[in-house]
Amino acid sequence: MDIDVPKMNLPRVVIVGGGFAGIEVAKQLRDRFQVVMVDKNNFHTFQPLLYQVATAGVEPDSIVFPLRKVFKGFRNFYFRMAEALEIIPEQNTLRTSIGSIFYDYLIIATGSDTNYFGMEELRVNSLPMKSVREALDLRSCILQNFEMAVTTSDMREREALMTYVIVGGGPTGVELAGALGELKKHVLPKDYPELDLGKMKIHLVEHSPRVLATMGEKSSEKAKKYLEDLDVIVELNMRITSYDGRSVKSEGVEKYSAATLIWAAGVRGVNIPGIPVASINANGRISVNEFNLAEGTKNIFALGDVAQMKTSDYPKGHPQVAQVAIQQATRLGKNISKGMDFQKWKPFHYRDKGSMATVGRNRAVVESKSITTQGFFAWLIWMFVHLLFLVGFRNRIIVFFNWLISYFNYDRGMRLIIRPFSRNKKS
Amino acid sequence: MDIDVPKMNLPRVVIVGGGFAGIEVAKQLRDRFQVVMVDKNNFHTFQPLLYQVATAGVEPDSIVFPLRKVFKGFRNFYFRMAEALEIIPEQNTLRTSIGSIFYDYLIIATGSDTNYFGMEELRVNSLPMKSVREALDLRSCILQNFEMAVTTSDMREREALMTYVIVGGGPTGVELAGALGELKKHVLPKDYPELDLGKMKIHLVEHSPRVLATMGEKSSEKAKKYLEDLDVIVELNMRITSYDGRSVKSEGVEKYSAATLIWAAGVRGVNIPGIPVASINANGRISVNEFNLAEGTKNIFALGDVAQMKTSDYPKGHPQVAQVAIQQATRLGKNISKGMDFQKWKPFHYRDKGSMATVGRNRAVVESKSITTQGFFAWLIWMFVHLLFLVGFRNRIIVFFNWLISYFNYDRGMRLIIRPFSRNKKS
Repeated sequence: MDIDVPKMNLPRVVIVGGGFAGIEVAKQLRDRFQVVMVDKNNFHTFQPLLYQVATAGVEPDSIVFPLRKVFKGFRNFYFRMAEALEIIPEQNTLRTSIGSIFYDYLIIATGSDTNYFGMEELRVNSLPMKSVREALDLRSCILQNFEMAVTTSDMREREALMTYVIVGGGPTGVELAGALGELKKHVLPKDYPELDLGKMKIHLVEHSPRVLATMGEKSSEKAKKYLEDLDVIVELNMRITSYDGRSVKSEGVEKYSAATLIWAAGVRGVNIPGIPVASINANGRISVNEFNLAEGTKNIFALGDVAQMKTSDYPKGHPQVAQVAIQQATRLGKNISKGMDFQKWKPFHYRDKGSMATVGRNRAVVESKSITTQGFFAWLIWMFVHLLFLVGFRNRIIVFFNWLISYFNYDRGMRLIIRPFSRNKKS
Repeated sequence: MDIDVPKMNLPRVVIVGGGFAGIEVAKQLRDRFQVVMVDKNNFHTFQPLLYQVATAGVEPDSIVFPLRKVFKGFRNFYFRMAEALEIIPEQNTLRTSIGSIFYDYLIIATGSDTNYFGMEELRVNSLPMKSVREALDLRSCILQNFEMAVTTSDMREREALMTYVIVGGGPTGVELAGALGELKKHVLPKDYPELDLGKMKIHLVEHSPRVLATMGEKSSEKAKKYLEDLDVIVELNMRITSYDGRSVKSEGVEKYSAATLIWAAGVRGVNIPGIPVASINANGRISVNEFNLAEGTKNIFALGDVAQMKTSDYPKGHPQVAQVAIQQATRLGKNISKGMDFQKWKPFHYRDKGSMATVGRNRAVVESKSITTQGFFAWLIWMFVHLLFLVGFRNRIIVFFNWLISYFNYDRGMRLIIRPFSRNKKS
């Protein structure tokens, strides 16, 4: 069965994934190409703020946006909610859960997912945070733990329920740990007067010698200090190797007894079967040339987290962040617009606009060409940049205010326990 | 195992359910009793607006409120998230999913759930809307249908996907049908320019000769007209008797081919095993006397939807609405405060403040002692009363504005498809 989109006298570009890269490249090709976007969700997720959903800071609707609405008014644009199953390059065909589709150009912008590095026991017992569903589930789990902690009279059990281990000291782990620290400080004591919140432990475990290892040493130091001010226990040079749902072990030695382990220690590219196997790296990313063309293919491109372009500046590929995705998408869109003559195409060059992470609500670390700073001013920059991004997407001032209010007034989070893929099935 | 709450020198009142009745009675007993509230959710749901969640009008966090927060600052109050399993009246004990608890007074305020009147096939294939989860699921289902309608080239299939049958012409069915009509008119055509929205059919089926049968004839007539203005097909004197997921039948005759049937045709009380069987009616409600004391018990009370108090004014019991629940709870709270001498107790008398229903955004029907009106003014009253209620609970002006904005700007709904109890399991 074929996906039902009209045949047109325009080259057809099929884009898999409505993340930062997918949206940007579709915008570049607007009206002049037939663009078919396939995504398994009907919304774009602003991933940098998932940790706020997970900690009841904001509701999902503040950080997602319906894809159909992003492209309202676009001509020759077709959205299809479906899962990409297989690429058949010889036939220029993508097979999906709702049928097959022919493409002139295929753009893979599928992003990344949590990487457990093959540790199955860890995967089964820990919680990831790479999607809205997962963030909602994490939130419900955190709150449920406290409900259970109130009801148990077994003190060891209670302490385990109040112990959170976050593995991975990158921006995700740091921001999540900071937000949990805020919950511990401001929200939970009011909700659970019966519990001694001093017993709540938040461990952030990083295998390298510092948190935010991709940033400068000053930023790492400050971030660690900010975390410790929020009562987060930062453990460096430690590698978590096993977790059975309770006992957290490093190299065979039990380190903590915790009911919750959140895995933020790595990601892997989400690729689609059919891509020449040789071009897929161990981390799931697809090797691409300077035009984001997938190795060994003629008209299949990969963008953002799932692409790995090795350059002299970035011998291991670019960092898996929104900026890379957007810039590659812009470049590719402009290149495709020139037709398939690679002679006319311009290679991708990454302009690193810097990086940042926030720790709690008044502190952040920021590094860019023009400024490197930490503390309150950095936090203002962080706020500004993230709001700008969100608003750019939504284009509506009302959301800005909604979100601003939610963020300042931490207590707004309604702390619903609704498990999207629940262990308790519907009765 | 016993639920871990301190033994106090106060009578212990155990309340099952954090709905309107449960919250109100706990407030009446504030500080002077040891109150233990048990609910399977950690939040209160403002049920009158569930239909707005189901139609992407507002997010759940606008119509729920954390129970722990409702009782912030209460002394001698204990919330426990748990399911009530069984009452053992001889031992004054309630058994729950987290252990047993002794009570001096037990108050059952468990509300009502969807009543399929024993039609199992209907239960399995139709969608209910009595909880946040169910409303979210309904919303995802409605949106998913449209995503599927876009992808199918089978016209019969497409029409079935765009056909919605709502069974039950009470306030829930009427309000839901109106909101679906608004979606059809204002939102979906923009999202799905590929689809002919003229093919979308919304059927409201009622077995009696008029919608809103508990209200006056004028209200029924007007409500029907407003619905028809929104393209809702109102079918009276029809009883749906079977639905296999596609074919909607009345007395063996197929009436529609529809992918979605929403069942709002009845509710039944949610009772707890252990109550004297003789006191439980066929509709699941518990027979109570004028003090809301459950028949055949000495210290077990039932309030609101789950209670059935037959009086000369209400020979079949009071209507299952928030007002009855709140007024019974107030009365019971005051009575219990006087001690267990029934001589001193005052019997419950219902003061009917009227009823109302909205159809779409600018029309409603309102009936009360002082005013009976339809149309825009009625809608303003509807808005005012509902907002007042919400704000009374939340006590925060910010929520009022959030909600007001969401409501006026229909387009705010982010239309997330996230199925809380999904057919697609986590991978």
